[in-house]
Amino acid sequence: MPLPLGFTDSPAELLRVGTGFHLTAEPTNAAPGFSGKKADGAAALAARAPVLAQLQEQLFAESRYGGQKSLLLVLQAMDTAGKGGIVAHVVGSVDPQGVRLTAFKAPTEEEKAHDFLWRIGPAVPGPGIFGVFDRSHYEDVLIHRVHGWADPAELERRYAAINAFETQLAAAGTRVVKVMLNISADEQKRRLLARLEDPTKYWKYSPKDVDERVFWPDYMDAYQKAFERTGTAAAPWHVVPADKKWYARLAVQEILIEALASLNLQWPAGDFDVRHERARLKST
Amino acid sequence: MPLPLGFTDSPAELLRVGTGFHLTAEPTNAAPGFSGKKADGAAALAARAPVLAQLQEQLFAESRYGGQKSLLLVLQAMDTAGKGGIVAHVVGSVDPQGVRLTAFKAPTEEEKAHDFLWRIGPAVPGPGIFGVFDRSHYEDVLIHRVHGWADPAELERRYAAINAFETQLAAAGTRVVKVMLNISADEQKRRLLARLEDPTKYWKYSPKDVDERVFWPDYMDAYQKAFERTGTAAAPWHVVPADKKWYARLAVQEILIEALASLNLQWPAGDFDVRHERARLKST
Repeated sequence: MPLPLGFTDSPAELLRVGTGFHLTAEPTNAAPGFSGKKADGAAALAARAPVLAQLQEQLFAESRYGGQKSLLLVLQAMDTAGKGGIVAHVVGSVDPQGVRLTAFKAPTEEEKAHDFLWRIGPAVPGPGIFGVFDRSHYEDVLIHRVHGWADPAELERRYAAINAFETQLAAAGTRVVKVMLNISADEQKRRLLARLEDPTKYWKYSPKDVDERVFWPDYMDAYQKAFERTGTAAAPWHVVPADKKWYARLAVQEILIEALASLNLQWPAGDFDVRHERARLKST
Repeated sequence: MPLPLGFTDSPAELLRVGTGFHLTAEPTNAAPGFSGKKADGAAALAARAPVLAQLQEQLFAESRYGGQKSLLLVLQAMDTAGKGGIVAHVVGSVDPQGVRLTAFKAPTEEEKAHDFLWRIGPAVPGPGIFGVFDRSHYEDVLIHRVHGWADPAELERRYAAINAFETQLAAAGTRVVKVMLNISADEQKRRLLARLEDPTKYWKYSPKDVDERVFWPDYMDAYQKAFERTGTAAAPWHVVPADKKWYARLAVQEILIEALASLNLQWPAGDFDVRHERARLKST
Protein backbone atom coordinates (compact mmCIF):
# COMPACT_ATOMS: atom_id res chain seq x y z
CA MET A 1 0.00 0.00 0.00
CA PRO A 2 1.53 3.37 -1.00
CA LEU A 3 2.08 5.99 1.68
CA PRO A 4 -0.41 8.86 1.68
CA LEU A 5 0.56 12.39 0.67
CA GLY A 6 2.82 14.06 3.22
CA PHE A 7 4.29 10.85 4.60
CA THR A 8 7.94 10.15 3.77
CA ASP A 9 8.11 6.98 5.87
CA SER A 10 5.66 4.52 7.40
CA PRO A 11 4.75 5.68 10.92
CA ALA A 12 3.98 2.07 11.83
CA GLU A 13 7.63 1.22 11.22
CA LEU A 14 9.15 4.44 12.53
CA LEU A 15 7.20 4.36 15.77
CA ARG A 16 7.40 0.65 16.54
CA VAL A 17 9.33 0.00 19.73
CA GLY A 18 12.47 -2.01 19.02
CA THR A 19 15.55 -3.08 20.92
CA GLY A 20 17.49 -0.26 22.55
CA PHE A 21 14.38 1.91 22.82
CA HIS A 22 14.40 4.47 25.64
CA LEU A 23 11.13 6.25 26.27
CA THR A 24 12.64 9.28 27.99
CA ALA A 25 14.93 9.88 24.99
CA GLU A 26 11.98 10.01 22.58
CA PRO A 27 10.75 13.38 21.31
CA THR A 28 7.14 14.18 22.25
CA ASN A 29 6.74 17.18 19.98
CA ALA A 30 7.93 15.68 16.68
CA ALA A 31 6.05 14.40 13.62
CA PRO A 32 8.18 11.46 12.46
CA GLY A 33 7.74 10.52 8.83
CA PHE A 34 5.41 13.39 8.02
CA SER A 35 6.72 16.36 6.06
CA GLY A 36 3.65 18.61 6.32
CA LYS A 37 2.34 21.07 8.85
CA LYS A 38 -0.79 21.02 11.04
CA ALA A 39 -3.18 21.95 8.21
CA ASP A 40 -1.66 19.29 5.95
CA GLY A 41 -2.09 16.79 8.75
CA ALA A 42 -5.75 17.64 9.20
CA ALA A 43 -6.31 17.33 5.45
CA ALA A 44 -4.51 13.98 5.34
CA LEU A 45 -6.58 12.69 8.28
CA ALA A 46 -9.81 13.56 6.45
CA ALA A 47 -8.54 12.10 3.18
CA ARG A 48 -7.53 8.80 4.77
CA ALA A 49 -10.71 8.36 6.87
CA PRO A 50 -12.61 6.62 4.03
CA VAL A 51 -9.65 4.25 3.51
CA LEU A 52 -9.78 3.16 7.15
CA ALA A 53 -13.59 2.95 7.01
CA GLN A 54 -13.54 0.72 3.93
CA LEU A 55 -10.93 -1.64 5.33
CA GLN A 56 -13.00 -1.97 8.49
CA GLU A 57 -16.10 -2.67 6.41
CA GLN A 58 -14.24 -5.41 4.55
CA LEU A 59 -13.12 -6.91 7.87
CA PHE A 60 -16.76 -6.90 8.98
CA ALA A 61 -18.02 -8.26 5.65
CA GLU A 62 -15.54 -11.17 5.74
CA SER A 63 -16.78 -12.16 9.19
CA ARG A 64 -20.30 -12.53 7.80
CA TYR A 65 -18.93 -15.26 5.55
CA GLY A 66 -16.96 -17.09 8.21
CA GLY A 67 -13.93 -14.82 8.50
CA GLN A 68 -12.29 -14.99 11.93
CA LYS A 69 -10.11 -11.89 11.76
CA SER A 70 -10.49 -8.92 14.05
CA LEU A 71 -8.52 -5.85 15.13
CA LEU A 72 -7.71 -4.66 18.63
CA LEU A 73 -6.31 -1.22 19.38
CA VAL A 74 -4.90 -0.94 22.89
CA LEU A 75 -4.56 2.71 23.92
CA GLN A 76 -2.42 3.71 26.89
CA ALA A 77 -1.24 7.15 27.91
CA MET A 78 -0.81 9.65 30.70
CA ASP A 79 -3.92 11.75 31.41
CA THR A 80 -4.74 14.41 28.80
CA ALA A 81 -2.48 12.75 26.21
CA GLY A 82 -5.36 12.43 23.78
CA LYS A 83 -6.86 8.93 24.01
CA GLY A 84 -10.29 10.50 23.82
CA GLY A 85 -9.33 12.44 20.72
CA ILE A 86 -8.10 9.27 19.02
CA VAL A 87 -11.41 7.57 19.80
CA ALA A 88 -13.50 10.55 18.64
CA HIS A 89 -11.54 11.50 15.52
CA VAL A 90 -9.90 8.28 14.28
CA VAL A 91 -12.12 5.48 15.56
CA GLY A 92 -15.09 7.82 15.14
CA SER A 93 -14.64 7.90 11.36
CA VAL A 94 -15.47 4.19 11.16
CA ASP A 95 -19.01 2.77 11.09
CA PRO A 96 -20.03 2.30 14.75
CA GLN A 97 -21.65 -1.03 13.85
CA GLY A 98 -18.23 -2.62 13.50
CA VAL A 99 -16.60 -1.00 16.54
CA ARG A 100 -16.53 -2.18 20.14
CA LEU A 101 -15.05 0.30 22.57
CA THR A 102 -14.28 -0.61 26.17
CA ALA A 103 -13.05 2.00 28.63
CA PHE A 104 -11.38 0.28 31.57
CA LYS A 105 -11.86 2.25 34.77
CA ALA A 106 -10.68 1.41 38.27
CA PRO A 107 -11.81 -2.20 38.80
CA THR A 108 -15.02 -3.00 40.68
CA GLU A 109 -14.99 -5.12 43.82
CA GLU A 110 -16.00 -8.16 41.75
CA GLU A 111 -13.23 -7.50 39.24
CA LYS A 112 -10.68 -7.03 42.01
CA ALA A 113 -11.63 -10.43 43.42
CA HIS A 114 -10.51 -12.07 40.17
CA ASP A 115 -7.14 -12.15 38.43
CA PHE A 116 -6.43 -8.99 36.44
CA LEU A 117 -7.16 -10.54 33.01
CA TRP A 118 -10.61 -11.76 34.07
CA ARG A 119 -12.34 -8.56 32.97
CA ILE A 120 -10.28 -8.27 29.79
CA GLY A 121 -11.21 -11.57 28.14
CA PRO A 122 -14.90 -10.82 27.56
CA ALA A 123 -14.01 -7.45 26.00
CA VAL A 124 -11.84 -8.75 23.15
CA PRO A 125 -13.36 -8.18 19.70
CA GLY A 126 -15.33 -10.93 18.01
CA PRO A 127 -14.83 -11.78 14.32
CA GLY A 128 -15.04 -8.73 12.06
CA ILE A 129 -14.95 -6.27 14.95
CA PHE A 130 -12.57 -3.37 15.50
CA GLY A 131 -12.08 -3.45 19.25
CA VAL A 132 -10.68 -0.49 21.16
CA PHE A 133 -9.38 -0.58 24.72
CA ASP A 134 -9.24 2.86 26.34
CA ARG A 135 -6.78 1.82 29.05
CA SER A 136 -6.38 -1.91 29.45
CA HIS A 137 -4.68 -4.78 31.29
CA TYR A 138 -1.55 -2.61 31.15
CA GLU A 139 -2.87 -0.55 34.06
CA ASP A 140 -2.03 -3.59 36.18
CA VAL A 141 1.67 -3.21 35.38
CA LEU A 142 1.70 0.62 35.21
CA ILE A 143 -0.17 2.30 38.05
CA HIS A 144 0.30 -0.88 40.10
CA ARG A 145 4.06 -0.66 39.62
CA VAL A 146 4.17 3.09 40.30
CA HIS A 147 2.27 2.81 43.59
CA GLY A 148 3.73 -0.52 44.66
CA TRP A 149 0.35 -2.28 44.59
CA ALA A 150 2.11 -5.32 43.12
CA ASP A 151 5.53 -6.61 44.17
CA PRO A 152 8.29 -7.37 41.64
CA ALA A 153 7.50 -11.10 41.44
CA GLU A 154 3.81 -10.38 40.86
CA LEU A 155 4.67 -7.85 38.16
CA GLU A 156 6.79 -10.47 36.39
CA ARG A 157 3.89 -12.93 36.59
CA ARG A 158 1.64 -10.32 35.00
CA TYR A 159 4.04 -9.55 32.13
CA ALA A 160 4.18 -13.27 31.36
CA ALA A 161 0.39 -13.60 31.60
CA ILE A 162 -0.05 -10.65 29.25
CA ASN A 163 2.30 -12.16 26.69
CA ALA A 164 0.56 -15.52 26.81
CA PHE A 165 -2.83 -13.83 26.50
CA GLU A 166 -1.87 -11.58 23.58
CA THR A 167 -0.05 -14.37 21.77
CA GLN A 168 -3.10 -16.63 21.81
CA LEU A 169 -5.30 -13.68 20.84
CA ALA A 170 -3.12 -13.05 17.78
CA ALA A 171 -3.03 -16.78 16.96
CA ALA A 172 -6.84 -16.85 17.01
CA GLY A 173 -7.01 -14.10 14.37
CA THR A 174 -6.88 -10.78 16.21
CA ARG A 175 -4.43 -8.19 14.95
CA VAL A 176 -3.20 -6.51 18.15
CA VAL A 177 -2.03 -2.90 17.83
CA LYS A 178 -0.65 -1.37 21.03
CA VAL A 179 -0.20 2.39 21.14
CA MET A 180 1.21 4.64 23.84
CA LEU A 181 0.53 8.34 23.27
CA ASN A 182 3.63 10.13 24.45
CA ILE A 183 3.27 13.68 25.80
CA SER A 184 5.66 15.71 27.89
CA ALA A 185 4.92 16.69 31.47
CA ASP A 186 4.91 20.33 30.38
CA GLU A 187 2.35 19.67 27.68
CA GLN A 188 0.14 17.93 30.23
CA LYS A 189 0.39 20.99 32.46
CA ARG A 190 -0.71 23.23 29.57
CA ARG A 191 -3.67 20.97 28.80
CA LEU A 192 -4.80 20.78 32.42
CA LEU A 193 -4.52 24.57 32.72
CA ALA A 194 -6.60 24.93 29.56
CA ARG A 195 -9.36 22.84 31.16
CA LEU A 196 -9.36 25.26 34.08
CA GLU A 197 -9.75 28.19 31.69
CA ASP A 198 -12.92 26.85 30.04
CA PRO A 199 -16.12 26.18 32.03
CA THR A 200 -17.31 23.74 29.33
CA LYS A 201 -14.25 21.63 30.18
CA TYR A 202 -14.39 21.70 34.00
CA TRP A 203 -16.09 18.29 33.97
CA LYS A 204 -12.96 16.79 32.43
CA TYR A 205 -10.73 18.11 35.20
CA SER A 206 -9.90 16.14 38.31
CA PRO A 207 -7.70 17.40 41.16
CA LYS A 208 -6.29 13.85 41.28
CA ASP A 209 -4.62 14.46 37.91
CA VAL A 210 -2.39 17.02 39.61
CA ASP A 211 -1.58 14.64 42.48
CA GLU A 212 -0.33 12.02 40.02
CA ARG A 213 2.08 14.44 38.33
CA VAL A 214 4.72 13.95 41.02
CA PHE A 215 4.95 10.32 39.91
CA TRP A 216 5.73 11.23 36.28
CA PRO A 217 9.26 9.73 36.24
CA ASP A 218 7.93 6.55 37.87
CA TYR A 219 5.27 6.25 35.19
CA MET A 220 7.87 6.68 32.45
CA ASP A 221 9.91 3.93 34.08
CA ALA A 222 6.87 1.64 34.32
CA TYR A 223 6.08 2.23 30.63
CA GLN A 224 9.70 1.50 29.70
CA LYS A 225 9.56 -1.81 31.60
CA ALA A 226 6.23 -2.70 30.04
CA PHE A 227 7.63 -2.11 26.54
CA GLU A 228 10.66 -4.26 27.32
CA ARG A 229 8.65 -7.13 28.77
CA THR A 230 5.60 -7.12 26.49
CA GLY A 231 6.84 -5.86 23.14
CA THR A 232 6.43 -9.07 21.14
CA ALA A 233 6.33 -9.88 17.43
CA ALA A 234 2.67 -10.87 17.83
CA ALA A 235 1.75 -7.66 19.64
CA PRO A 236 4.30 -4.86 19.19
CA TRP A 237 4.15 -1.48 20.90
CA HIS A 238 4.09 1.87 19.10
CA VAL A 239 5.07 5.04 20.91
CA VAL A 240 3.44 8.02 19.21
CA PRO A 241 4.64 11.58 19.88
CA ALA A 242 1.47 13.28 21.07
CA ASP A 243 2.26 16.89 21.95
CA LYS A 244 0.88 17.67 18.49
CA LYS A 245 -2.62 16.22 18.61
CA TRP A 246 -2.98 16.38 14.84
CA TYR A 247 0.12 14.24 14.33
CA ALA A 248 -0.86 11.63 16.91
CA ARG A 249 -4.27 11.17 15.25
CA LEU A 250 -2.77 10.90 11.80
CA ALA A 251 -0.09 8.46 12.91
CA VAL A 252 -2.53 6.18 14.75
CA GLN A 253 -4.87 6.26 11.75
CA GLU A 254 -2.01 5.19 9.50
CA ILE A 255 -0.86 2.46 11.89
CA LEU A 256 -4.42 1.08 11.86
CA ILE A 257 -4.64 1.30 8.07
CA GLU A 258 -1.37 -0.60 7.69
CA ALA A 259 -2.51 -3.23 10.20
CA LEU A 260 -5.77 -3.84 8.35
CA ALA A 261 -4.15 -3.70 4.92
CA SER A 262 -1.73 -6.43 5.98
CA LEU A 263 -4.71 -8.80 6.46
CA ASN A 264 -5.39 -8.92 2.69
CA LEU A 265 -9.11 -8.45 3.17
CA GLN A 266 -11.49 -9.33 0.32
CA TRP A 267 -15.15 -8.63 -0.37
CA PRO A 268 -17.06 -11.92 0.06
CA ALA A 269 -18.23 -13.39 -3.25
CA GLY A 270 -21.66 -14.26 -1.88
CA ASP A 271 -23.13 -17.74 -1.67
CA PHE A 272 -26.05 -17.29 -4.08
CA ASP A 273 -26.60 -17.18 -7.84
CA VAL A 274 -26.80 -13.49 -8.74
CA ARG A 275 -28.82 -13.96 -11.94
CA HIS A 276 -31.29 -16.27 -10.22
CA GLU A 277 -31.74 -13.85 -7.34
CA ARG A 278 -32.24 -10.92 -9.69
CA ALA A 279 -35.01 -12.77 -11.53
CA ARG A 280 -36.63 -13.91 -8.30
CA LEU A 281 -36.55 -10.38 -6.90
CA LYS A 282 -38.02 -8.84 -10.05
CA SER A 283 -40.97 -11.22 -9.87
CA THR A 284 -41.99 -9.92 -6.41
CA MET B 1 -34.46 25.84 20.02
CA PRO B 2 -34.82 27.44 16.55
CA LEU B 3 -35.29 25.18 13.55
CA PRO B 4 -32.24 24.77 11.32
CA LEU B 5 -32.07 26.24 7.83
CA GLY B 6 -34.38 24.46 5.40
CA PHE B 7 -36.86 23.26 8.01
CA THR B 8 -40.27 24.90 7.98
CA ASP B 9 -41.67 22.69 10.74
CA SER B 10 -40.31 20.43 13.46
CA PRO B 11 -39.95 16.88 12.09
CA ALA B 12 -40.29 15.56 15.63
CA GLU B 13 -43.81 16.99 15.73
CA LEU B 14 -44.76 16.32 12.11
CA LEU B 15 -43.65 12.70 12.19
CA ARG B 16 -44.90 11.75 15.65
CA VAL B 17 -47.59 9.08 15.44
CA GLY B 18 -50.88 10.40 16.77
CA THR B 19 -54.50 9.24 16.89
CA GLY B 20 -55.99 8.35 13.54
CA PHE B 21 -52.59 7.48 12.09
CA HIS B 22 -52.61 4.96 9.24
CA LEU B 23 -49.23 3.66 8.16
CA THR B 24 -50.29 2.59 4.67
CA ALA B 25 -51.65 6.09 3.96
CA GLU B 26 -48.30 7.71 4.80
CA PRO B 27 -46.03 8.89 1.99
CA THR B 28 -42.63 7.15 1.89
CA ASN B 29 -41.03 9.48 -0.64
CA ALA B 30 -41.79 12.84 0.98
CA ALA B 31 -39.65 15.23 3.02
CA PRO B 32 -42.12 16.66 5.55
CA GLY B 33 -41.13 19.99 7.03
CA PHE B 34 -38.05 20.41 4.85
CA SER B 35 -38.12 22.85 1.97
CA GLY B 36 -34.73 22.01 0.44
CA LYS B 37 -33.46 19.41 -1.99
CA LYS B 38 -30.98 16.55 -1.53
CA ALA B 39 -27.89 18.77 -1.54
CA ASP B 40 -29.49 21.12 0.99
CA GLY B 41 -30.31 18.13 3.13
CA ALA B 42 -26.73 16.86 3.06
CA ALA B 43 -25.47 20.34 3.96
CA ALA B 44 -27.97 20.62 6.81
CA LEU B 45 -26.96 17.19 8.14
CA ALA B 46 -23.30 18.23 8.23
CA ALA B 47 -24.13 21.59 9.79
CA ARG B 48 -26.24 20.05 12.55
CA ALA B 49 -23.82 17.23 13.42
CA PRO B 50 -21.82 19.39 15.87
CA VAL B 51 -25.07 20.42 17.58
CA LEU B 52 -26.01 16.79 18.21
CA ALA B 53 -22.44 15.99 19.26
CA GLN B 54 -22.35 18.81 21.79
CA LEU B 55 -25.71 17.92 23.32
CA GLN B 56 -24.53 14.34 23.69
CA GLU B 57 -21.30 15.54 25.32
CA GLN B 58 -23.34 17.59 27.80
CA LEU B 59 -25.47 14.55 28.58
CA PHE B 60 -22.28 12.57 29.22
CA ALA B 61 -20.70 15.39 31.25
CA GLU B 62 -23.77 15.70 33.50
CA SER B 63 -23.57 11.99 34.29
CA ARG B 64 -20.04 12.45 35.61
CA TYR B 65 -21.52 14.76 38.23
CA GLY B 66 -24.42 12.55 39.24
CA GLY B 67 -26.79 13.16 36.33
CA GLN B 68 -29.14 10.24 35.69
CA LYS B 69 -30.39 11.15 32.23
CA SER B 70 -29.82 9.07 29.14
CA LEU B 71 -31.17 8.74 25.61
CA LEU B 72 -32.41 5.63 23.83
CA LEU B 73 -33.07 5.51 20.10
CA VAL B 74 -35.09 2.46 19.07
CA LEU B 75 -34.75 1.83 15.33
CA GLN B 76 -37.17 -0.44 13.52
CA ALA B 77 -37.68 -0.88 9.79
CA MET B 78 -38.09 -3.30 6.92
CA ASP B 79 -34.80 -4.59 5.49
CA THR B 80 -32.79 -2.05 3.43
CA ALA B 81 -34.77 0.86 4.88
CA GLY B 82 -31.60 2.48 6.13
CA LYS B 83 -31.09 1.63 9.79
CA GLY B 84 -27.42 1.10 9.08
CA GLY B 85 -27.15 4.47 7.38
CA ILE B 86 -28.72 6.19 10.39
CA VAL B 87 -26.19 4.50 12.66
CA ALA B 88 -23.23 5.32 10.39
CA HIS B 89 -24.15 8.89 9.45
CA VAL B 90 -26.22 10.25 12.35
CA VAL B 91 -25.09 8.26 15.39
CA GLY B 92 -21.62 8.12 13.82
CA SER B 93 -21.20 11.88 14.13
CA VAL B 94 -21.27 11.61 17.92
CA ASP B 95 -18.27 10.71 20.09
CA PRO B 96 -18.23 6.87 20.29
CA GLN B 97 -17.30 7.11 23.99
CA GLY B 98 -20.84 8.17 24.82
CA VAL B 99 -22.66 5.74 22.52
CA ARG B 100 -23.80 2.20 23.18
CA LEU B 101 -25.14 0.39 20.14
CA THR B 102 -26.88 -2.96 20.38
CA ALA B 103 -27.95 -4.87 17.28
CA PHE B 104 -30.60 -7.41 18.20
CA LYS B 105 -30.36 -10.48 15.97
CA ALA B 106 -32.45 -13.65 16.08
CA PRO B 107 -32.38 -14.70 19.75
CA THR B 108 -29.94 -17.34 20.99
CA GLU B 109 -31.18 -20.53 22.63
CA GLU B 110 -30.52 -19.01 26.04
CA GLU B 111 -32.43 -15.84 25.12
CA LYS B 112 -35.33 -17.88 23.77
CA ALA B 113 -35.56 -19.72 27.07
CA HIS B 114 -36.33 -16.42 28.82
CA ASP B 115 -39.12 -13.91 28.39
CA PHE B 116 -38.59 -11.58 25.43
CA LEU B 117 -37.54 -8.56 27.53
CA TRP B 118 -34.80 -10.52 29.33
CA ARG B 119 -32.14 -9.65 26.77
CA ILE B 120 -33.33 -6.04 26.44
CA GLY B 121 -32.88 -4.92 30.05
CA PRO B 122 -29.09 -5.22 30.21
CA ALA B 123 -28.76 -3.23 26.95
CA VAL B 124 -30.50 -0.05 28.10
CA PRO B 125 -28.17 2.94 28.33
CA GLY B 126 -26.61 3.91 31.64
CA PRO B 127 -26.48 7.54 32.84
CA GLY B 128 -25.03 9.88 30.22
CA ILE B 129 -25.16 7.30 27.45
CA PHE B 130 -26.82 7.56 24.06
CA GLY B 131 -28.14 4.04 23.54
CA VAL B 132 -29.15 2.78 20.12
CA PHE B 133 -31.20 -0.36 19.46
CA ASP B 134 -30.83 -1.64 15.89
CA ARG B 135 -33.99 -3.74 16.02
CA SER B 136 -35.38 -4.31 19.48
CA HIS B 137 -38.08 -5.87 21.64
CA TYR B 138 -40.48 -4.81 18.89
CA GLU B 139 -39.39 -7.80 16.79
CA ASP B 140 -41.37 -9.86 19.28
CA VAL B 141 -44.60 -8.14 18.21
CA LEU B 142 -43.67 -7.69 14.54
CA ILE B 143 -42.10 -10.77 12.94
CA HIS B 144 -43.77 -12.87 15.65
CA ARG B 145 -47.17 -11.49 14.68
CA VAL B 146 -46.51 -11.84 10.94
CA HIS B 147 -45.51 -15.50 11.20
CA GLY B 148 -47.93 -16.42 13.97
CA TRP B 149 -45.15 -17.32 16.42
CA ALA B 150 -47.22 -15.69 19.16
CA ASP B 151 -51.01 -15.96 19.53
CA PRO B 152 -53.24 -12.88 19.99
CA ALA B 153 -53.36 -13.16 23.77
CA GLU B 154 -49.58 -13.46 23.97
CA LEU B 155 -49.17 -10.44 21.69
CA GLU B 156 -51.43 -8.40 23.99
CA ARG B 157 -49.35 -9.49 26.97
CA ARG B 158 -46.22 -8.31 25.14
CA TYR B 159 -47.66 -4.89 24.25
CA ALA B 160 -48.53 -4.40 27.91
CA ALA B 161 -45.08 -5.58 29.01
CA ILE B 162 -43.42 -3.19 26.56
CA ASN B 163 -45.48 -0.25 27.84
CA ALA B 164 -44.66 -1.05 31.46
CA PHE B 165 -40.97 -1.45 30.60
CA GLU B 166 -40.69 1.77 28.60
CA THR B 167 -42.70 3.77 31.13
CA GLN B 168 -40.38 2.80 33.99
CA LEU B 169 -37.37 3.43 31.74
CA ALA B 170 -38.60 6.97 31.05
CA ALA B 171 -39.40 7.51 34.73
CA ALA B 172 -35.84 6.53 35.63
CA GLY B 173 -34.42 9.24 33.35
CA THR B 174 -34.14 7.73 29.88
CA ARG B 175 -35.55 9.75 26.99
CA VAL B 176 -37.01 7.07 24.70
CA VAL B 177 -37.17 7.94 20.99
CA LYS B 178 -38.79 5.30 18.79
CA VAL B 179 -38.33 5.57 15.04
CA MET B 180 -39.71 3.47 12.21
CA LEU B 181 -38.05 4.13 8.85
CA ASN B 182 -40.81 3.87 6.28
CA ILE B 183 -39.89 2.75 2.77
CA SER B 184 -42.11 1.44 -0.01
CA ALA B 185 -41.95 -2.13 -1.25
CA ASP B 186 -40.81 -0.80 -4.63
CA GLU B 187 -37.97 1.14 -3.08
CA GLN B 188 -36.87 -1.99 -1.22
CA LYS B 189 -36.83 -3.87 -4.54
CA ARG B 190 -34.61 -1.18 -6.08
CA ARG B 191 -32.20 -1.32 -3.15
CA LEU B 192 -31.97 -5.11 -3.18
CA LEU B 193 -31.38 -5.05 -6.95
CA ALA B 194 -28.63 -2.47 -6.44
CA ARG B 195 -26.89 -4.85 -4.02
CA LEU B 196 -26.94 -7.50 -6.74
CA GLU B 197 -25.32 -5.04 -9.17
CA ASP B 198 -22.30 -4.34 -6.97
CA PRO B 199 -19.87 -7.10 -5.87
CA THR B 200 -18.75 -4.96 -2.92
CA LYS B 201 -22.35 -5.19 -1.65
CA TYR B 202 -23.05 -8.91 -2.18
CA TRP B 203 -22.27 -9.55 1.48
CA LYS B 204 -25.24 -7.39 2.45
CA TYR B 205 -27.64 -9.44 0.32
CA SER B 206 -29.58 -12.40 1.65
CA PRO B 207 -31.99 -14.51 -0.41
CA LYS B 208 -34.21 -14.55 2.69
CA ASP B 209 -34.90 -10.85 2.17
CA VAL B 210 -36.76 -11.75 -1.02
CA ASP B 211 -38.75 -14.50 0.74
CA GLU B 212 -40.02 -12.01 3.31
CA ARG B 213 -41.33 -9.61 0.65
CA VAL B 214 -44.57 -11.59 0.21
CA PHE B 215 -45.40 -10.73 3.83
CA TRP B 216 -45.10 -6.96 3.23
CA PRO B 217 -48.80 -6.17 3.92
CA ASP B 218 -48.70 -8.31 7.08
CA TYR B 219 -45.65 -6.39 8.30
CA MET B 220 -47.40 -3.07 7.67
CA ASP B 221 -50.35 -4.36 9.66
CA ALA B 222 -48.09 -5.51 12.50
CA TYR B 223 -46.39 -2.07 12.59
CA GLN B 224 -49.78 -0.35 12.62
CA LYS B 225 -50.87 -2.47 15.59
CA ALA B 226 -47.59 -1.83 17.41
CA PHE B 227 -48.01 1.93 16.98
CA GLU B 228 -51.58 1.76 18.29
CA ARG B 229 -50.69 -0.34 21.32
CA THR B 230 -47.31 1.12 22.28
CA GLY B 231 -47.42 4.77 21.21
CA THR B 232 -47.38 6.36 24.67
CA ALA B 233 -46.68 9.86 25.96
CA ALA B 234 -43.55 8.50 27.65
CA ALA B 235 -42.30 6.76 24.52
CA PRO B 236 -43.91 8.02 21.33
CA TRP B 237 -43.32 6.58 17.86
CA HIS B 238 -42.07 8.55 14.88
CA VAL B 239 -42.61 7.28 11.35
CA VAL B 240 -39.97 8.74 9.05
CA PRO B 241 -40.38 8.65 5.25
CA ALA B 242 -37.24 6.83 4.15
CA ASP B 243 -37.29 6.43 0.37
CA LYS B 244 -35.03 9.52 0.36
CA LYS B 245 -32.12 8.43 2.53
CA TRP B 246 -30.90 12.00 2.93
CA TYR B 247 -34.23 13.08 4.38
CA ALA B 248 -34.51 10.16 6.79
CA ARG B 249 -31.05 10.88 8.21
CA LEU B 250 -31.77 14.59 8.56
CA ALA B 251 -35.15 13.98 10.20
CA VAL B 252 -33.81 11.44 12.71
CA GLN B 253 -30.90 13.77 13.52
CA GLU B 254 -33.37 16.58 14.23
CA ILE B 255 -35.65 14.35 16.32
CA LEU B 256 -32.62 13.40 18.43
CA ILE B 257 -31.52 17.03 18.76
CA GLU B 258 -34.99 18.05 19.91
CA ALA B 259 -35.12 15.17 22.39
CA LEU B 260 -31.77 16.11 23.93
CA ALA B 261 -32.51 19.84 23.87
CA SER B 262 -35.70 19.20 25.86
CA LEU B 263 -33.57 17.84 28.73
CA ASN B 264 -32.12 21.31 29.49
CA LEU B 265 -28.60 19.97 29.80
CA GLN B 266 -25.94 22.06 31.54
CA TRP B 267 -22.17 21.88 31.76
CA PRO B 268 -21.26 20.77 35.29
CA ALA B 269 -19.80 23.57 37.39
CA GLY B 270 -17.06 21.37 38.82
CA ASP B 271 -16.57 20.53 42.51
CA PHE B 272 -13.18 22.18 43.00
CA ASP B 273 -11.79 25.69 43.51
CA VAL B 274 -10.53 26.78 40.09
CA ARG B 275 -8.01 29.36 41.41
CA HIS B 276 -6.64 26.92 43.97
CA GLU B 277 -6.25 24.19 41.35
CA ARG B 278 -4.55 26.57 38.93
CA ALA B 279 -1.98 27.53 41.58
CA ARG B 280 -1.42 23.94 42.63
CA LEU B 281 -0.95 22.86 39.01
CA LYS B 282 1.50 25.67 38.26
CA SER B 283 3.66 24.60 41.17
CA THR B 284 4.20 21.10 39.67
